[in-house]
Amino acid sequence: MAKTLFCTSLLYRSTMEHKRAVAEFCGNVELCNHTARVVFSDPYRVSQYNHWTSPYLDRDVEAVTEDNCLKIEIAELKSQFCERGQALIHGDLHTGSVMVTLDSTQVIDPEFVFYGPMGFDIGAFLGNLILAYFAQDGHANQRNDRKSYKEWILRTLEETWTLFHKKFTALWDQHKGGSGEAYIPEIYNNPEIQQLAQQKFMKDLFHDTLRYGAAKMIRIGGLWVWPMLRILNQLRMPENEQLREQRALEFAKMLLKERRKFQAMAEVVSAIPNLHL
Amino acid sequence: MAKTLFCTSLLYRSTMEHKRAVAEFCGNVELCNHTARVVFSDPYRVSQYNHWTSPYLDRDVEAVTEDNCLKIEIAELKSQFCERGQALIHGDLHTGSVMVTLDSTQVIDPEFVFYGPMGFDIGAFLGNLILAYFAQDGHANQRNDRKSYKEWILRTLEETWTLFHKKFTALWDQHKGGSGEAYIPEIYNNPEIQQLAQQKFMKDLFHDTLRYGAAKMIRIGGLWVWPMLRILNQLRMPENEQLREQRALEFAKMLLKERRKFQAMAEVVSAIPNLHL
Repeated sequence: MAKTLFCTSLLYRSTMEHKRAVAEFCGNVELCNHTARVVFSDPYRVSQYNHWTSPYLDRDVEAVTEDNCLKIEIAELKSQFCERGQALIHGDLHTGSVMVTLDSTQVIDPEFVFYGPMGFDIGAFLGNLILAYFAQDGHANQRNDRKSYKEWILRTLEETWTLFHKKFTALWDQHKGGSGEAYIPEIYNNPEIQQLAQQKFMKDLFHDTLRYGAAKMIRIGGLWVWPMLRILNQLRMPENEQLREQRALEFAKMLLKERRKFQAMAEVVSAIPNLHL
Repeated sequence: MAKTLFCTSLLYRSTMEHKRAVAEFCGNVELCNHTARVVFSDPYRVSQYNHWTSPYLDRDVEAVTEDNCLKIEIAELKSQFCERGQALIHGDLHTGSVMVTLDSTQVIDPEFVFYGPMGFDIGAFLGNLILAYFAQDGHANQRNDRKSYKEWILRTLEETWTLFHKKFTALWDQHKGGSGEAYIPEIYNNPEIQQLAQQKFMKDLFHDTLRYGAAKMIRIGGLWVWPMLRILNQLRMPENEQLREQRALEFAKMLLKERRKFQAMAEVVSAIPNLHL
């Protein structure tokens, strides 16, 4: 993620190379359009096709559709997703797209790839981890309370951002005399301004990551995929399942609206409620 | 400006139409690259090719190259200029590109056209008006003190934004049941959220306009074009000419860094110093 996002951005490329690369990928119209609709619009409108949340989450859906602040935030994300060609992103980087063995990591399903905002990829992955955390109690039983697995998820959440941050800024430091034209060395020519630029960029990227992650959580955990899977699998609706969907939704809403109060991923991890549902 | 920017944005177009339109114009690589360089980079580096500011503005150039806050702002503008395909913009909309008679207005030089941030066009035009204001005292003489012309410029500055705001939001209101997908009517479905969305959008656009306008003023008035014209025309360097270049530069730097303190164009107009130089 650090390599792909860094090396396809203006931090590594000239404005000319970047523009040419954006042009090469801007034909991916249909799938971008699909994502824009299912992530940033469908969860916020009452649709006759969405049977999945009803009747269990009727009041939660209503609360979302009446939350002006949330819907303004989502509109800004949608426009940014469609307008901002910051770097080459995977476009559907949920945890199910990442295949791992002990010595190999492969990412599948590149059909959504286009030039978009970096935070959409990082957020998709981290948002999925948070959802996985919320889901664990549903898999717990007397033999395994999933406590250590839940701890592993939270650790992975924090470490993923920390490692991304470390690798991304290391690439930046390594290539700062190179051809990247966002901060050309003749102008950003002293350690103080280089540090300021990097801190500002990484802080903005962190908050972008949180809000895109939250948007993906709302779609998947609260208002679409989870409830749909529950019904498709003809699961009874245990009360706790409903509560988990509600709590995931509430946490995501908070993260989207109040992201600026978080300065580090450890603070986000601390804010995730331990439900024991 | 209101029509072109509105009708080529996601406020009027579906995400699909918008993406296709961006694709159509993204081949304009060389001229975008030229603008990115001359507006957002050249004025901030000490270049052997820039004889124009030396020695009269040596200290001012030095102050700019040492202003970390200013340079961070400019870097963000440069990246946004290269990354954000918000609407179809003219790309070089200085006042010299606008041809007017009593009953016709024509805009020339469309070769820079591409999908970029709306504020770049509006800012270019308004920034030029502010520079024209600063320049007037240089043309004043005993027969004409240019007072009424200066007042006309300030009035035009305010009226241009006011009229743009009025026409743009009128188009928005007129088409809010249409195919635009930034704020689809099913979701943004009550007068309160529609008003909130519009206010937020217009406020962001206003501040974007101020910062792009300031960036163009720095390039044209302070650090490149004006000083160059002065020398190319083999003008003596009257002390006042130098002062005008300095004051234009100082005002632009303030506007770029402190734009958020302005809520309306009338406040910007009030902040423009009356120099009598």
